[in-house]
Amino acid sequence: MLSRLIFSGIQPTGIPHLGNYLGALANWVKLQNTAPPNDHLLFSIVGWHALTLPQNPKELSASRRDMLATLLAVGIDPNRSILFHQDHVPAHTELAWILSCFTPISKLRRMTTWKSRLATARNANNEVEVDESLLNTGLFTYPVLQAADILAYRATHVPVGEDQRQHLELCRDLAEAFNRATKPGKPIFPLPIHVDTPFRKILSLKDPSSKMSKSSPDVQSRILLTDSASQIRAKIRGAVTDSISGITYDPVARPGTSNLLTILAACSEEDAENVAIQYRTKGHGQLKADVADAVEELIKRPRAELEKLKGSIGYLDQIAQSGAEKAKQRAEATLKEVRSRLGLV
Amino acid sequence: MLSRLIFSGIQPTGIPHLGNYLGALANWVKLQNTAPPNDHLLFSIVGWHALTLPQNPKELSASRRDMLATLLAVGIDPNRSILFHQDHVPAHTELAWILSCFTPISKLRRMTTWKSRLATARNANNEVEVDESLLNTGLFTYPVLQAADILAYRATHVPVGEDQRQHLELCRDLAEAFNRATKPGKPIFPLPIHVDTPFRKILSLKDPSSKMSKSSPDVQSRILLTDSASQIRAKIRGAVTDSISGITYDPVARPGTSNLLTILAACSEEDAENVAIQYRTKGHGQLKADVADAVEELIKRPRAELEKLKGSIGYLDQIAQSGAEKAKQRAEATLKEVRSRLGLV
Repeated sequence: MLSRLIFSGIQPTGIPHLGNYLGALANWVKLQNTAPPNDHLLFSIVGWHALTLPQNPKELSASRRDMLATLLAVGIDPNRSILFHQDHVPAHTELAWILSCFTPISKLRRMTTWKSRLATARNANNEVEVDESLLNTGLFTYPVLQAADILAYRATHVPVGEDQRQHLELCRDLAEAFNRATKPGKPIFPLPIHVDTPFRKILSLKDPSSKMSKSSPDVQSRILLTDSASQIRAKIRGAVTDSISGITYDPVARPGTSNLLTILAACSEEDAENVAIQYRTKGHGQLKADVADAVEELIKRPRAELEKLKGSIGYLDQIAQSGAEKAKQRAEATLKEVRSRLGLV
Repeated sequence: MLSRLIFSGIQPTGIPHLGNYLGALANWVKLQNTAPPNDHLLFSIVGWHALTLPQNPKELSASRRDMLATLLAVGIDPNRSILFHQDHVPAHTELAWILSCFTPISKLRRMTTWKSRLATARNANNEVEVDESLLNTGLFTYPVLQAADILAYRATHVPVGEDQRQHLELCRDLAEAFNRATKPGKPIFPLPIHVDTPFRKILSLKDPSSKMSKSSPDVQSRILLTDSASQIRAKIRGAVTDSISGITYDPVARPGTSNLLTILAACSEEDAENVAIQYRTKGHGQLKADVADAVEELIKRPRAELEKLKGSIGYLDQIAQSGAEKAKQRAEATLKEVRSRLGLV
């Protein structure tokens, strides 16, 4: 089998909640730990992308460092994977500019993710409430920067969520357009493919009609990676369920109960429906106690690790710098070839 | 008087014609040579912008070096001015990305230069023939990159042509938006102002209804900085004028004759109408002979210098590298402050 080059990026959102952890982060760690030795892995904290929505500078700065600490705490190994800040590597915006000159604006117009991002940022009820007059150019063009993030490393495999699938499609289109326009017989960019990762959608503990979210005003609705065992127990105990007796997995009719099953299943990498069978005759109290235990078991090690790392600013800076150097080396090799094909030499 | 920081950019179009020379280049040299010692001057060959229209890589590479040689040949002094390639300094695309997050897309939509650029590139008869379906994202967003070119150096003064005035306006808007959003009391960017430079519009020698242009298929329509004395004489002799006897300056009724007067006046930095008075009773033959002599006198020194420089690839590379280092130092200082204000630290 040919070796894979796996790239993925995450926004510097700071300390993740359980939904983030069981979504992207746990998958990255699993990918890393199961990858054959000749695979290359790059994980990037994408600070440039954070700017597409208004940010508080102090919070962004802290979130950026916390995200790095978190990735280390959950098990990304900087000796196995290249872990780095996107904005430490100039090739990202350079290649984004180059690719933008190969991107028909009509194609970008068909990307619709900015609508949901704007809707979330503005707490709008739905996407109809946001219109183009609110749109900044960065939020409109960020799929091109995403393509550059991937192609700067000539990545072959990209684990992305369902909502980013159309962006990966654009990335492939741009890779192909660039290959075709410059030395068609000798493509520089591989066409990256999607890596299927088990996706668990974790819902709010207080309102199981919406996802667990960092921006929800109710802190009881989410479990953070820094929560103590007693905080976890209290939040799970307070989770909204239903008054139907017995436990069944039915996300439509019983979203709260099913969400707890999803969490429990995720912690042990099982299937939620199978887990439900074991609880058929048990009550919500038992389920909640077991969920709290499982979550505590899951996060206690990364939590302790994160606690240690958060104080080690010098160490974190050193990891960031060394990751940036390794990433730069690869990205600059790509850019050198790209420039040469364009005549920018 | 406060010292000025003057920035201007030129596309790598290779050997310039007389229109380019009397337009931007001669003005840059004059600005440099008349600037008080405490002014700073930066002149950039903007390779990233060239990518907004399709390029032949070999030609672009040659044009890039030729433009550097030309700027030196016409009198840009690399010990007085910072002369550099835009694409050697990463801050340009980095700041462009940042500014794009402060640019409402509706504002970019009002920039219309891309229409004329596309029309020229496609040899369309007018702008109505080009529509947005032909537009790439780079060509749509390049005014933001232009703003970054200027603001990366915190330039205060920008000599630009009339067609770029709306872009400078956008640059001021973006500088203001950034200042306002980050530490409002302590603006980081000055609001750059336009430097008025005498502008001479030189027309095609064969079709005085259009500008002298590098892309016209008729090589007799333009004089290049590399043309010999006899080539100049032949081209001027063959210039389209009219059969009215006596010389008068009347750009509407006598565009060809008036164009010759404009060229003659530009060579001696006089006013075309004043020059015309001296030729009132003379014929086209005399005018053409004098124009040819004046042009030869004007370009013989830069032509010889250019001839010498074109062979000195090592020297040119060294100039480019040293310019890039000086430009980088300034731009990185700006970006450091910009990043700190955004929380990207």
